[in-house]
Amino acid sequence: MPIVDSSLPVLDLSATSIDLTRQLCDIESVSGDEATIADAIMVSLADAHHLEIIRDGDAIVARTNLGRDKRVVIAGHIDTVPINNNVPTRYESIDGVDFLWGRGTVDMKAGVAVQLKLAAELADPRVDITWMWYDHEEVDSDLNGLTRLARTRPDFFAADFAILGEPSNGTVEGGCNGTLRAIVRTRGARAHSARSWVGENAIHKAAPVLARLAAYVPAAIDVDGLVYREGLNAVSIAGGVASNVIPDLCEIVVNYRFAPSRDAAEAERHVRDFFEGFEVDVVDLAVGARPGLDAPLAREFLAAVGAEPRPKYGWTDVARFSAFGVPAVNYGPGDPQLAHHDEERVPLAQIDAVEQGLRAWLASR
Amino acid sequence: MPIVDSSLPVLDLSATSIDLTRQLCDIESVSGDEATIADAIMVSLADAHHLEIIRDGDAIVARTNLGRDKRVVIAGHIDTVPINNNVPTRYESIDGVDFLWGRGTVDMKAGVAVQLKLAAELADPRVDITWMWYDHEEVDSDLNGLTRLARTRPDFFAADFAILGEPSNGTVEGGCNGTLRAIVRTRGARAHSARSWVGENAIHKAAPVLARLAAYVPAAIDVDGLVYREGLNAVSIAGGVASNVIPDLCEIVVNYRFAPSRDAAEAERHVRDFFEGFEVDVVDLAVGARPGLDAPLAREFLAAVGAEPRPKYGWTDVARFSAFGVPAVNYGPGDPQLAHHDEERVPLAQIDAVEQGLRAWLASR
Repeated sequence: MPIVDSSLPVLDLSATSIDLTRQLCDIESVSGDEATIADAIMVSLADAHHLEIIRDGDAIVARTNLGRDKRVVIAGHIDTVPINNNVPTRYESIDGVDFLWGRGTVDMKAGVAVQLKLAAELADPRVDITWMWYDHEEVDSDLNGLTRLARTRPDFFAADFAILGEPSNGTVEGGCNGTLRAIVRTRGARAHSARSWVGENAIHKAAPVLARLAAYVPAAIDVDGLVYREGLNAVSIAGGVASNVIPDLCEIVVNYRFAPSRDAAEAERHVRDFFEGFEVDVVDLAVGARPGLDAPLAREFLAAVGAEPRPKYGWTDVARFSAFGVPAVNYGPGDPQLAHHDEERVPLAQIDAVEQGLRAWLASR
Repeated sequence: MPIVDSSLPVLDLSATSIDLTRQLCDIESVSGDEATIADAIMVSLADAHHLEIIRDGDAIVARTNLGRDKRVVIAGHIDTVPINNNVPTRYESIDGVDFLWGRGTVDMKAGVAVQLKLAAELADPRVDITWMWYDHEEVDSDLNGLTRLARTRPDFFAADFAILGEPSNGTVEGGCNGTLRAIVRTRGARAHSARSWVGENAIHKAAPVLARLAAYVPAAIDVDGLVYREGLNAVSIAGGVASNVIPDLCEIVVNYRFAPSRDAAEAERHVRDFFEGFEVDVVDLAVGARPGLDAPLAREFLAAVGAEPRPKYGWTDVARFSAFGVPAVNYGPGDPQLAHHDEERVPLAQIDAVEQGLRAWLASR
């Protein structure tokens, strides 16, 4: 006799996408704790016989195998950043706009809800679809469910187009900028500040580093028809030993956001050249993703959705598909500025609109 | 029947100054925990009938009342910075030089040992002497025993000359520079670093502050025949919210060390003028002390000790005497660079030399 765990939350995929968003948000799934929501998703798809379902850790891959000549990956992460008294969710109305408020509503369970509902309902889509709902997006890249799948099941990434449900205010945001972090260090020699001439002030030596940053003119680069604005900024600075000591070290962390037309080597070279004469330690680098919106499937998608694409500035997992040569866009409900915010909330109309957009394209044959 | 606490450490003032330094160091007396050492000092002076002894908290004032026409204050603090496995003390020999090693040996129980021994022995000195051994020097100025005595017993500070036993390598260091600390702030507006143009980078705005500091040419100012070198330095810098956020605040703590010829208003004006156009918050200010070495008693003292006076750069409690119009010098065994150091150690020969110097002057009539 099978053991039935009556405490398992049940997801009702026949509900509206809005209601399903609420069901998903009310199952807490902070990164590392996605087992329950992954179980619930598995169970909810038990009757969707048009889907082949693979579980890998707490990632779930569900795909049609209809022999279509094109395949699209549609993906979303099921984890959230930590909850801060903002679960369970609730409906709210602000200035006449109806919202669902709470952790995960924007980032990104509304997107997942739309995907999950369509996965269950669209038994005969115009293209084969690989749905991916994955874990650990909000933490170290090493833990990310897509990183794991890319390593263990690269065949899942063989597709003609990919849509990531990251919040994009219901518009289509193509590709994404890359991001590089580096520490620029200046060094000196400690001394008592009453005898400062004995030492060498590392903080004073940071003056030209900051002056260069202040004078930096970022580029705006056209990639496949979208214009990506770059940026190079200090995101932190730290130096000092004690209030009576000449400091021997100053560290400036800089963040370079660069257009997806630049590769890793070019991005790193740009930063090293810019800070020539200073110690530069690159600590983090992820290249961007070209939008690839000139691909036929991408054009079909844009036409069906009726959206004017914009560039995505923040780095997202679309870059992982781009690395496999798959054009990828962000398309999801919710304002990215409210992601991780304690007042995270998604306009209900955007959930409906994204469902309709995706359905219009996928259901038409 | 009096209660005798047999656990009270006993100080033997008939021992050498070197041995007495060791006895004092081996009674732990980190700031706030001076009661035991103060008790021991009180008891050790019980037979010194030429002294009037006043206890105030854990400060002890012992003075002669011989009707001399001049009075000299000779002072030293009895607390230390925290112990770090460097008590009990031990004798060490390095490159043929004999040291007493351990917490307090330099800052400043060797100085106190010399004073305590002379206080007990010199029943008929050339001037009246007010000995002061006080608590809480190594912590907030508000707690300092001299701050308390200056408020409750200003009459103790009526003197013609003062000698502080702070380490000065056995030479005489006159007066001291003043010190001012200020926070210079730059402000901006937060934004996601992927959309940096939405924000305003406060760290970049600190570039001209650091550039001014780097270009600063400190003055060297002759005061009463000693040349005081000044300095204006950043001692810390901090800014940054998160690695993907444009920072909205940068704070630079600067430390201005200024010649004792400048008063508080002049020092503050100098710093505010220098950082004109920036937000400046003065958080700490202590004026210096003029050396006053042209006073007749100071000249007598220098001649007897046979020392060539030098300026003191670090701020010390001599400034408290200077504030009462009393010329004051630093004269004590030990290298100030080793104060607070885990390898704090005093050359034995300097303890002897300072005892001889003080005795030569005070005992001659």
